[in-house]
Amino acid sequence: MKAAILTVGTEILFGQVVNTNAAWLSRKLNDLGIDVMYHYTVGDNSDRLSIMIKDIFETCDLIITTGGLGPTEDDLTKETVCEVMGDELVLHQPSLESLKEYERKQGTKITENNYKQAMMPSRATVFDNQAGTAPAMALSIDGKTAVCLPGPPREMKWVFENRVRDYLANMSDKVIHYRQIRLFGLGESTLETKLLPLIDVQTDPTIATYAKEGECAVRIASKRDTLDEAVRAVDEMCAKVNELVGDYIYSFDDEEFKDVVGNILIEKNISLASAESLTGGLFAKTITDVPGISAVFDRGIVTYTNRAKMDELGVKEETLERFGAVSEQTAAEMAAGLHEKTGCDICVSATGIAGPSGGTPEKPVGLVYMGIWHDGICEVRKIIEPQASRNVIRNYAMLNMLDMIYKAVR
Amino acid sequence: MKAAILTVGTEILFGQVVNTNAAWLSRKLNDLGIDVMYHYTVGDNSDRLSIMIKDIFETCDLIITTGGLGPTEDDLTKETVCEVMGDELVLHQPSLESLKEYERKQGTKITENNYKQAMMPSRATVFDNQAGTAPAMALSIDGKTAVCLPGPPREMKWVFENRVRDYLANMSDKVIHYRQIRLFGLGESTLETKLLPLIDVQTDPTIATYAKEGECAVRIASKRDTLDEAVRAVDEMCAKVNELVGDYIYSFDDEEFKDVVGNILIEKNISLASAESLTGGLFAKTITDVPGISAVFDRGIVTYTNRAKMDELGVKEETLERFGAVSEQTAAEMAAGLHEKTGCDICVSATGIAGPSGGTPEKPVGLVYMGIWHDGICEVRKIIEPQASRNVIRNYAMLNMLDMIYKAVR
Repeated sequence: MKAAILTVGTEILFGQVVNTNAAWLSRKLNDLGIDVMYHYTVGDNSDRLSIMIKDIFETCDLIITTGGLGPTEDDLTKETVCEVMGDELVLHQPSLESLKEYERKQGTKITENNYKQAMMPSRATVFDNQAGTAPAMALSIDGKTAVCLPGPPREMKWVFENRVRDYLANMSDKVIHYRQIRLFGLGESTLETKLLPLIDVQTDPTIATYAKEGECAVRIASKRDTLDEAVRAVDEMCAKVNELVGDYIYSFDDEEFKDVVGNILIEKNISLASAESLTGGLFAKTITDVPGISAVFDRGIVTYTNRAKMDELGVKEETLERFGAVSEQTAAEMAAGLHEKTGCDICVSATGIAGPSGGTPEKPVGLVYMGIWHDGICEVRKIIEPQASRNVIRNYAMLNMLDMIYKAVR
Repeated sequence: MKAAILTVGTEILFGQVVNTNAAWLSRKLNDLGIDVMYHYTVGDNSDRLSIMIKDIFETCDLIITTGGLGPTEDDLTKETVCEVMGDELVLHQPSLESLKEYERKQGTKITENNYKQAMMPSRATVFDNQAGTAPAMALSIDGKTAVCLPGPPREMKWVFENRVRDYLANMSDKVIHYRQIRLFGLGESTLETKLLPLIDVQTDPTIATYAKEGECAVRIASKRDTLDEAVRAVDEMCAKVNELVGDYIYSFDDEEFKDVVGNILIEKNISLASAESLTGGLFAKTITDVPGISAVFDRGIVTYTNRAKMDELGVKEETLERFGAVSEQTAAEMAAGLHEKTGCDICVSATGIAGPSGGTPEKPVGLVYMGIWHDGICEVRKIIEPQASRNVIRNYAMLNMLDMIYKAVR
């Protein structure tokens, strides 16, 4: 099946928003064995949108639109798709009920223009949107199908994952299965070099490596006649990858590092506290993204000033004076002091220079020390990322804190 | 002048790479007064590319391509553009010299296929590329112009900024100016309703509203003969928007809320500390994204457990028992206790239920209390977001903390 992704929104043409939806949807459609032939973007203009839809259907069987489903006057996608495909809009009662239910829960009065969201093509398959108010829909007439999704990425992803994926899977005749392996501690080119024996001879399953922020992933996909065949092929290849780079793998199923680490802590009932300087709460924020972590995460302390490091963590003034706030000794005292204070099973710390200013020749921007206290011992890891931005340095430090916990508990 | 951006590259259609070039180029073309009507992406396939170029020239005068200028067999953009526009490729001697010079400097032997990069349409304006090896070019025939840029963002930007901008500026007769206003505390449809008197009669400047995560934006753009005229028209419209929704505006120049708040604190030397429960460090992480904030941000404490709330912030056991951890009283005691401990000028707090579990009929998921201590007083704000996800609830609570600080210090 040949598909095009059609993004609707003047803000994209103005360049105010980077079109991340198209890339995300492309990957998801590929997973379903659907070939994405084109991406298009058009503004909030019914005439141009109408011409574009007609043009695309000349060569493609499927159009996935994003954007233009909202309540405002320039939200025109559904109306235009309906008109081009020769259907008419009717009131969709369940969508109206959802809007009213939302209104009741919020305790606010929804404005009149919100109700246009409940109008749907008469022959549409309507998808409810539990991440927002605009419902989505698919319209399939004479072998041509349009699927209209909301524009905000969070809503678009929710509707796709929970409603549209199955709808599209039923349209395809091959089965695609894939797994995504996630790794920490290897650069993408090193990873690729280590996997070259597998990559060079790939047919099916295919293997591809991806760089993520401070991490890597390996994607293994197989397209077969049956799911069983595809699963077997992918699992065999996973085992080969494990032989080559198993030490760096933390998930075979595309889990987030924070979830892997958080869930081990919860499962083993290991209590945790964190003391952060340069990461400024990023570690605590990230670990508390994990639902249920409150059972084991006691507290996090962001000690940005020297005074706070002494007050909160008992870091010695002498240590700060002699070695500096960014030092192996301070990182160790932060972790040990936090254990002293909280009694938690694991206490982690980070101190470093995130930049853009504050670096010196001895202690450049990108230098970070991360400490961990566990089982009566204190360890410190050092990283230097001199080329990286503030965000990248902070993120990489946070991932290293997760990795140190992972190594201590797995 | 009507323009389209045409991205060439199968990796974009696979979703392996997010197309950031299109957004960047859109902004640059807008600044030159060129209307970007469409974005297109096509794979490395000469037939489909050829059809697409012909189609685009039906409605647009200018195509900017990115990608497909390299030395490999699937780099076909220049060849295809040349053929569609009826020109022929000839050896471009200066480009050949540059390639040889590059070869000499690198001390490596360039492969034969590299020389195809020196072949150019006979009527092209060639742009050298000092950020890479593939030269770029523009071809203008019978009122239609194609500008072909390299795909790697760094090279594309270098060639555009240093070579193509002036080339295009000479082709345009209008100037575009815009500002983006950012607001907190209003939903997009309420915002639009309030601005309807302006939106309904818009010609130039144009006004458009956008929803961001928990926030809104208004974009005002004007296209005039001179920059002065455009600036004046935009500023007049900004003043009108300010009259209608000024209470919610925190920036007229597309700044982030955290930067606006952080920079006021830095400028006025107001010290800050935070105590977080459900936000788990998100507030501290966000405020410490602001470079230079270490001058005023003393510390952040993430008190996830009741014990930590009592130990760290002096929240009374009686308060936790009688009103619960998620209550107005606890939020107030967290903020006041943090002030007691740190002496900071402003102390903020948040406690609530981020979900997905942990809600009760009286205290549902999405209920959050945010406290602030400043100038000897303690205030608490309450929000309920029953439909929202964990991340959205946490993000909205964090934005409310910023807003409470903003209201206290502006």
